[in-house]
Amino acid sequence: MSATEEALRHREKKARIKAAKDRLYASRTGRKGLLLVHTGKGKGKSTAAWGLVVRALGHGRRVGIVQFVKGRRQTGERAFFARFPELVELRVMGEGFTWETQDRDRDIRAARAALAEARRMLTAPDFHLVVLDELNIVLRYGYLPLEEVLAVLAARRPDLHVVVTGRNAPPGLVEAADLVTEMVEVKHPFRAGIGAQLGIEY
Amino acid sequence: MSATEEALRHREKKARIKAAKDRLYASRTGRKGLLLVHTGKGKGKSTAAWGLVVRALGHGRRVGIVQFVKGRRQTGERAFFARFPELVELRVMGEGFTWETQDRDRDIRAARAALAEARRMLTAPDFHLVVLDELNIVLRYGYLPLEEVLAVLAARRPDLHVVVTGRNAPPGLVEAADLVTEMVEVKHPFRAGIGAQLGIEY
Repeated sequence: MSATEEALRHREKKARIKAAKDRLYASRTGRKGLLLVHTGKGKGKSTAAWGLVVRALGHGRRVGIVQFVKGRRQTGERAFFARFPELVELRVMGEGFTWETQDRDRDIRAARAALAEARRMLTAPDFHLVVLDELNIVLRYGYLPLEEVLAVLAARRPDLHVVVTGRNAPPGLVEAADLVTEMVEVKHPFRAGIGAQLGIEY
Repeated sequence: MSATEEALRHREKKARIKAAKDRLYASRTGRKGLLLVHTGKGKGKSTAAWGLVVRALGHGRRVGIVQFVKGRRQTGERAFFARFPELVELRVMGEGFTWETQDRDRDIRAARAALAEARRMLTAPDFHLVVLDELNIVLRYGYLPLEEVLAVLAARRPDLHVVVTGRNAPPGLVEAADLVTEMVEVKHPFRAGIGAQLGIEY
């Protein structure tokens, strides 16, 4: 096959692929607020949620964030989002949750307060996206009943997008979700003795 | 078991987990620039990279981004990062790549130009993180030789973090990487006839 023939074949193949994609996209006209779940043991669950926040901000839309689990460190994302108080409403509710605390009652109270914030954001008129960060962890520990959380999610504004993050998403949440992505750890530097690094892990 | 006993048991269990985690973290003192790969068919590969950008910006660090594949739409992330010209250097190189074009020679030229930009950023003194967005796609189409790309990555500033995104990461890149996450699609709204939505897909 000559170089000209090869270029022609490549061009025809690409044209076919493009036509198929155009048809597919044209058939998808549904519009509704999506419930997204980022789960799995790999990295990128919360990080991909921050990417969606950036996307919304780029379109000039408002975002609500409830962090159900507060990490030990001041994170880069929290410092960054704090610069946009008119566009990002961020509530950090978990008071040193899970392994950092040894007080189940206090954890449950913090989870309840976080859910109340989430309920408010999910019915507010002005958000494009609400991130419920590490909500799956709270469900996993049994700090909130799944049925109640599902009811809060179902009662959200119909055009509002919601992202729930955290490993071990319960089957009932996966069932209710529109899009579920599992982050799978293929290779991790902790295994090679590399520590958590600024701007990567936090 | 009484409520008091249960609370005590919970507290002891959590204390054991915390002690184990503290020991583990303390043993991880390595510090080096990581090569991260986000691959898989699921969503969140580029989005998680934008989350890492946010994290870096929150720490006041500079970020370089080379987009090897230019999408059809103006994306929210591009609009947002353009607001921080002193902190984010963004180059969109792919000129309507892959299925949008039917000109392999032009695609290869665009890929070469993008790699030259990447090489410059990877050896520059001032970046904390460089994102090579959709580089895997370019490798998959054979527009750039893997060996050359790996050499460029290996020659980067030793303390620079790099994220490579795109499905079908080649095995040689996975081998070279420190951390590889595969985004697996568990459930996708396109299947349910929901179209691409502003602030979610772009």
